[in-house]
Amino acid sequence: MKNVKVIVNGAGGHMGKALLNACAKQGYEIFATVDKYDPTANYATLETVPAGADVVIDFSHHSAAGDLAEFVKRTGTPLVLATTGHTEEEMDAIKQASECAPVFHSANMSLGVALLVELAKKTAALFPDADIEIVEAHHNRKLDAPSGTAKMILNGILQVLPERRGVFGRSGMSKREKEEIGVHALRMGNVVGVHEVHVCTENQCITLKHEAVDRALFADGALSAGAFLVSQKPGFYNMDDLLRGKI
Amino acid sequence: MKNVKVIVNGAGGHMGKALLNACAKQGYEIFATVDKYDPTANYATLETVPAGADVVIDFSHHSAAGDLAEFVKRTGTPLVLATTGHTEEEMDAIKQASECAPVFHSANMSLGVALLVELAKKTAALFPDADIEIVEAHHNRKLDAPSGTAKMILNGILQVLPERRGVFGRSGMSKREKEEIGVHALRMGNVVGVHEVHVCTENQCITLKHEAVDRALFADGALSAGAFLVSQKPGFYNMDDLLRGKI
Amino acid sequence: MKNVKVIVNGAGGHMGKALLNACAKQGYEIFATVDKYDPTANYATLETVPAGADVVIDFSHHSAAGDLAEFVKRTGTPLVLATTGHTEEEMDAIKQASECAPVFHSANMSLGVALLVELAKKTAALFPDADIEIVEAHHNRKLDAPSGTAKMILNGILQVLPERRGVFGRSGMSKREKEEIGVHALRMGNVVGVHEVHVCTENQCITLKHEAVDRALFADGALSAGAFLVSQKPGFYNMDDLLRGKI
Amino acid sequence: MKNVKVIVNGAGGHMGKALLNACAKQGYEIFATVDKYDPTANYATLETVPAGADVVIDFSHHSAAGDLAEFVKRTGTPLVLATTGHTEEEMDAIKQASECAPVFHSANMSLGVALLVELAKKTAALFPDADIEIVEAHHNRKLDAPSGTAKMILNGILQVLPERRGVFGRSGMSKREKEEIGVHALRMGNVVGVHEVHVCTENQCITLKHEAVDRALFADGALSAGAFLVSQKPGFYNMDDLLRGKI
Repeated sequence: MKNVKVIVNGAGGHMGKALLNACAKQGYEIFATVDKYDPTANYATLETVPAGADVVIDFSHHSAAGDLAEFVKRTGTPLVLATTGHTEEEMDAIKQASECAPVFHSANMSLGVALLVELAKKTAALFPDADIEIVEAHHNRKLDAPSGTAKMILNGILQVLPERRGVFGRSGMSKREKEEIGVHALRMGNVVGVHEVHVCTENQCITLKHEAVDRALFADGALSAGAFLVSQKPGFYNMDDLLRGKI
Repeated sequence: MKNVKVIVNGAGGHMGKALLNACAKQGYEIFATVDKYDPTANYATLETVPAGADVVIDFSHHSAAGDLAEFVKRTGTPLVLATTGHTEEEMDAIKQASECAPVFHSANMSLGVALLVELAKKTAALFPDADIEIVEAHHNRKLDAPSGTAKMILNGILQVLPERRGVFGRSGMSKREKEEIGVHALRMGNVVGVHEVHVCTENQCITLKHEAVDRALFADGALSAGAFLVSQKPGFYNMDDLLRGKI
Repeated sequence: MKNVKVIVNGAGGHMGKALLNACAKQGYEIFATVDKYDPTANYATLETVPAGADVVIDFSHHSAAGDLAEFVKRTGTPLVLATTGHTEEEMDAIKQASECAPVFHSANMSLGVALLVELAKKTAALFPDADIEIVEAHHNRKLDAPSGTAKMILNGILQVLPERRGVFGRSGMSKREKEEIGVHALRMGNVVGVHEVHVCTENQCITLKHEAVDRALFADGALSAGAFLVSQKPGFYNMDDLLRGKI
Repeated sequence: MKNVKVIVNGAGGHMGKALLNACAKQGYEIFATVDKYDPTANYATLETVPAGADVVIDFSHHSAAGDLAEFVKRTGTPLVLATTGHTEEEMDAIKQASECAPVFHSANMSLGVALLVELAKKTAALFPDADIEIVEAHHNRKLDAPSGTAKMILNGILQVLPERRGVFGRSGMSKREKEEIGVHALRMGNVVGVHEVHVCTENQCITLKHEAVDRALFADGALSAGAFLVSQKPGFYNMDDLLRGKI
């Protein structure tokens, strides 16, 4: 994607660096790097960054929301907000800014995971009587089970089949009820993240699987969102909007 | 699907019997069974079957096309044509009949396989730079490799990414070219049919898999097509139309 | 295995018929079929069956144990006991008979499952610090979770790594403990039976998987046990003995 | 493995660094680091390294063989030779040295891959009539197909079933012959290395899979070999010896 000029906010952090790498690989131009803790960044704060970029991508911290909103309002630059954990006040500031320029926000920046959710919904819609089971695997240090992404997939399917309900793990003596969606959490080794959805009728099984190989996939997703925003009107966008334009 | 009245043409054959089973399981009503070789069928030919059914499903033989066309024209009954190998003349007769009633035809009646093709196209569209590989497995008696279904998946992806090309198997010393779509045919044991599509970028892999458990899935697909036709206008329909209404 | 003469006890039952099929396919000779409920069997009871067979395979009912023991003592015929649920008294009778001829008994006649357990033990022994997770899938009518076979695999691994413990399902907020072996039970569609063992270190994952395609695999296992017994001395044998001779 | 003192030869290279990491993680003690190109190493050459270590592990270059042989003869230190590509002369020097101390050599230092080969041989031995197919996947930059490891697995199985033969890829119109072992090479994304062996009879399928997560697994394998050597007599050892002691 040549000629898209990107501001990386939070350039010194782990994901900021991954984003700089992704820009280099995919041919995006770096307009500016911003980081108050990283002296090698072009700017310490957004306050002094001029207009002229095509998009600002934020991988810093939810507390940067106010500065980002100001920047968007001052310069009209589209914003990809790739952080989570915003307070209501912070999110209000961002939403106000989205009246001046397109703003993208998603709890999970992975395009592939967003696709998996969409495909699972379509499969569930086509086979509304099928048994559905979700299996996820992560490294042995992960604290929560099932993963937030597995719950996101479950919730996506529940939009299509609202009478179903998730069952986290299964043991003992009792027949599976029709409305169960089993969710199984494997924890092992160094697995970055695997999510599988099984949709089985009596005569066929469809399995949809997403495997994260490298956390850099979130940087890729943010760049895709950035490229998408460039041609959008002011407003608040999420993964559904991005996929709608693409699949 | 209560209250849908079905005529099973070719009721005495392997797939005809599977269709009768599927009707019983799913609550479809049998209006008539037709088979010239099976004395237990209600009718030897369609000529004497009265109007009044909601759909006629054909699992007999492509040579029945003329009789089917006559029947559709006489009674206005929707037709699901679940046979293959039709001559041009036979198909012309069917297409003429589709001016009087909705007619459905597909080379593969599995709803799940049709879905897999659609999902693979969407995934390829979203990740146009990804590497794509197709793997299929069938029993050790299958003659052709890769399977017709694998080629159908490949062709679906080529609609979205026309610069790609299929490569059947891979060996020797040469780097994978960007445009290759590897297609790999496993032959082993008694496997009914498995098809997998891998779509991999540097940072994530998405795998879409269809596993046929029982050939009865084609009967299920024909019934889904029948239920779809009931509310359609005259015309010629295929799996794309069926999925469009459902996913 | 030509020239092995088999008596099928319980020939009229589901597994008895599968065994007759397996004999035909693999070239075993049927010496006699025995079934008190099936008038097409050669004999109603073992009492009148003469000596001369190479092995008697029992797929009837645990209550046949007394008759089988008498038959083994009278004729010296090796016995494969492929039924379960024996009372202590019944098993005592069988064990006494094993002083006269070789007797084989296993709770699971599948050679492949027995192999899976052995391979899992070897893998666990080689990677004693690895994380281990077991996943099984069965049809949606199965009552118990996890499956008896999954527990058998777990127990096999616990022989090698006695400080570990099984955890059936996993949910909530807590870090995986080193000694956990997660066991996950999927219930869906018409799946005959799948068992997977994952053994993962930080740098590699080994997965061992057994998939039952047809319940006839138990007949195959019984025949393998029969062929094994032919050359054994009197005594009581199980799957470990059979595998020791083969792998 | 506390108290095992390791000399790392080639400490400055990619694999040397991985070995130093692995020593730290697993509690091995570093006796000395040796590298003629890395000024931060303790020694530029082995010539001046004193006796006293428990094992020297070589990840430098095949041309170091002469120096290693001298060192082994002078100090009696066990050697793990984790390089490949040795000339006949170099290998002769190493073999001579193995009269003074135990020496370990393998073309693939991954313990997991060696295990996979052993397990595949056992499975093939137990099911000599089964259909066998091998599938491997690697990143899209890999030149050779199938991988050397896939060929190693194939050769292992051919030791057990010598009448079989490998078939690299499969396409066209022809029935699978009984003796074929299909080998399929997927090339996609950034996959470090996956190898799968399918062993299928009519009634069951066994799948054995190894997935490399990080190339550091070769350092782990070298350390396992080192720990094994400590208690061995002089002689030349390979992966078979290591596994024999462990599984």
